[in-house]
Amino acid sequence: MKKLKKEVYEANMEVQKQNLIKYTWGNVSGIDRSKGLFVIKPSGVAYEDLTPDMMVVCDLDGNVVEGNLNPSSDTQTHAVLYKHFDEIGGIVHTHSPWATVWAQAGLDVPVYGTTHADTFYGDIPCARFLTEEEILEAYEYETGKVIVEEFSKREIKPMDIPAILLKGHGPFTWGKDSNEAVVNAVVLEEVCKMNYYTEKLNENVEKLPQRVLDKHYLRKHGKDAYYGQGR
Amino acid sequence: MKKLKKEVYEANMEVQKQNLIKYTWGNVSGIDRSKGLFVIKPSGVAYEDLTPDMMVVCDLDGNVVEGNLNPSSDTQTHAVLYKHFDEIGGIVHTHSPWATVWAQAGLDVPVYGTTHADTFYGDIPCARFLTEEEILEAYEYETGKVIVEEFSKREIKPMDIPAILLKGHGPFTWGKDSNEAVVNAVVLEEVCKMNYYTEKLNENVEKLPQRVLDKHYLRKHGKDAYYGQGR
Amino acid sequence: MKKLKKEVYEANMEVQKQNLIKYTWGNVSGIDRSKGLFVIKPSGVAYEDLTPDMMVVCDLDGNVVEGNLNPSSDTQTHAVLYKHFDEIGGIVHTHSPWATVWAQAGLDVPVYGTTHADTFYGDIPCARFLTEEEILEAYEYETGKVIVEEFSKREIKPMDIPAILLKGHGPFTWGKDSNEAVVNAVVLEEVCKMNYYTEKLNENVEKLPQRVLDKHYLRKHGKDAYYGQGR
Amino acid sequence: MKKLKKEVYEANMEVQKQNLIKYTWGNVSGIDRSKGLFVIKPSGVAYEDLTPDMMVVCDLDGNVVEGNLNPSSDTQTHAVLYKHFDEIGGIVHTHSPWATVWAQAGLDVPVYGTTHADTFYGDIPCARFLTEEEILEAYEYETGKVIVEEFSKREIKPMDIPAILLKGHGPFTWGKDSNEAVVNAVVLEEVCKMNYYTEKLNENVEKLPQRVLDKHYLRKHGKDAYYGQGR
Repeated sequence: MKKLKKEVYEANMEVQKQNLIKYTWGNVSGIDRSKGLFVIKPSGVAYEDLTPDMMVVCDLDGNVVEGNLNPSSDTQTHAVLYKHFDEIGGIVHTHSPWATVWAQAGLDVPVYGTTHADTFYGDIPCARFLTEEEILEAYEYETGKVIVEEFSKREIKPMDIPAILLKGHGPFTWGKDSNEAVVNAVVLEEVCKMNYYTEKLNENVEKLPQRVLDKHYLRKHGKDAYYGQGR
Repeated sequence: MKKLKKEVYEANMEVQKQNLIKYTWGNVSGIDRSKGLFVIKPSGVAYEDLTPDMMVVCDLDGNVVEGNLNPSSDTQTHAVLYKHFDEIGGIVHTHSPWATVWAQAGLDVPVYGTTHADTFYGDIPCARFLTEEEILEAYEYETGKVIVEEFSKREIKPMDIPAILLKGHGPFTWGKDSNEAVVNAVVLEEVCKMNYYTEKLNENVEKLPQRVLDKHYLRKHGKDAYYGQGR
Repeated sequence: MKKLKKEVYEANMEVQKQNLIKYTWGNVSGIDRSKGLFVIKPSGVAYEDLTPDMMVVCDLDGNVVEGNLNPSSDTQTHAVLYKHFDEIGGIVHTHSPWATVWAQAGLDVPVYGTTHADTFYGDIPCARFLTEEEILEAYEYETGKVIVEEFSKREIKPMDIPAILLKGHGPFTWGKDSNEAVVNAVVLEEVCKMNYYTEKLNENVEKLPQRVLDKHYLRKHGKDAYYGQGR
Repeated sequence: MKKLKKEVYEANMEVQKQNLIKYTWGNVSGIDRSKGLFVIKPSGVAYEDLTPDMMVVCDLDGNVVEGNLNPSSDTQTHAVLYKHFDEIGGIVHTHSPWATVWAQAGLDVPVYGTTHADTFYGDIPCARFLTEEEILEAYEYETGKVIVEEFSKREIKPMDIPAILLKGHGPFTWGKDSNEAVVNAVVLEEVCKMNYYTEKLNENVEKLPQRVLDKHYLRKHGKDAYYGQGR
């Protein structure tokens, strides 16, 4: 797990470098699917004190398998997501301000532009508040269940729209590995900022036509992608 | 007091590093409860010229006990707060822009999200303007009295909501020591920014349900806290 | 082409340094009119890995003439612009946030101030969405055609207003060379930001009178310019 | 004039360091009242190329007395201000974004808080557009006249409110020397930002009561000031 710990450590440092996190408000994890184990940031440790060795190894029920520190308080949420979303290899949670604004407003993020369409194949969903029962029973575990429920209810594939907002809380993003999950967190933040101002500038703004959404998403994803080198 | 001077000096430098202060618009203090003395930044000295030695020692009536420089012009406000709020060990005053915007607007900051709930157990109060008499008599002292009055009137415990806005002026925050007071000033600024945009994005925004506020505040504070390492 | 490659490389680096680009969301090109060839950034290569040697040389039909990497996916758009706009020597495309906000809102940027007038001699146009047919046939080529169509329809000279917004996408700017195209991208971003807030602050804002627009534009451009050294 | 050139050079560099200026959009000057000569930045020279030697010396009619470079294109405006405002020793012009937003909106900046009151003793005026005749005759000279006219008409002393907005253009600030003029430009920018958001957050916002304005302004200015060291 040494390589994965290093990768997850670096993804945690990158998410802070990208200004998505203040203090210890966030966590990144990455999974080794062959072993069914994931690596996650310890809880409440300052970024300047973090080392790859401090990363905690957990199984898919969120039990600590290796490591001396408490894992992130959101570990159960990560565990649920890895269990239900087979395709994902890394997860990021932050309180990045623009995504959190949309989460606090309790609104889906509509597709207004190609920056959004290049990464997310449709509106980014905002999930509901947890009920009293869910909070009392197992808050972080039930948070994961609410995310899975939202994608299932809306029939969205997790890798088509690798992000969700938790109402009154903040964003979770994911990707094929922890690094891509961080990139998606950065894109989400930028899109949330631009879409806020777009709505304010033109209250009758049109959503991006489906034909442009298709073109931009599929130019970068799937078998006919032609962006970048050597695909 | 050497250790406390160093701690307060560092808290002053940190609050500037966190971009909460332009020029000399702010001050941090910390108290030694056993001696009944607090240490505060000198008035109007540029941060780049500041040293731990320049910190001024005052008693709880705001009289200078040690130091060659004039203490912060807001010293009397700090003195009143230390006198009436037994639990607090450090105080920060800034004109940080987002908190100042809410202060200028004369509005309490409502709880819209868990970032707020992780630190502040409810709405952050905005206190009234001082009267003509209060201003003429002893402006900075009466400012402290107005803060104490506001917490008393609303029946808020100072450590449950370690922040207040002064109408038309800016924020004061506090904490168990000067370092925690700075952290609370940073969180306040972030929350004020996010809550502004939240209201603009959704004018019918719901406040965070009490059950989520309880969960998040109590997950980090009090006897059942489980966030972080080794509590 | 060695000199032009270096110049275009540096313009690409500058546009990122100016915070107009996240990750690889943008591209800069420059043309050698005597040879009818232009140099452009390779597609999807991270800025920290970029070197002058990696720049790709293309002809005016967008065919690669020299270089081992795929050119920017927007190469055909650049080619069309060079073909139809004789006076331009460099082109920049970004998703810079403020210009993208206006593009997503689908609005022209009105002239509200002299910062705008110093560089752009009138409102900055926003072009239409592409049709289904245009997208399916040759998306990037047709994007260039839509830009040319917009300037022709509005009877604007490309060097009088060296910028356009693509609806739901982002800005293209140009200039006498790649360096000037970058400067114009920076000015556009600043103007888009200030004009957004201007409209919000005063919904009855007046446009800049023609007499002030003339004065400021012509003080910096054309035969009677007197700004700067040695014109 | 060597000392003054150095001071003005440093004030020019500081205004850029404070992020009030992009490219060459601004200029700072300072005057030697005993000689009736002022020193100003050359026109259109990049900040990284600037040296103290390049500063241009002008008389109160704006004629160049010493220096090989063209002085700022706004030199005549500076000259008029020095001629009519006896108390001022330094002048700054920028297109800093928040002040420019208020200028483009054509609105005075109302006093909403003590940050404003600490520096400006009342609303910051926005001056009118120049007429066709004024522009054609002597644009920069007449700009200075419009500023003087505005202060005279409103009966404001220049040192009580050391700033003005030019409609559709941007701010001018001044002070007892070039350094203080820069500080005032920084405060103006911060106040313009905070006051914009204050109005948006609470459309029924009250202006700062006169009693608080008096207290804060006079705590820092005039014979009864007690802020800082050694007054």
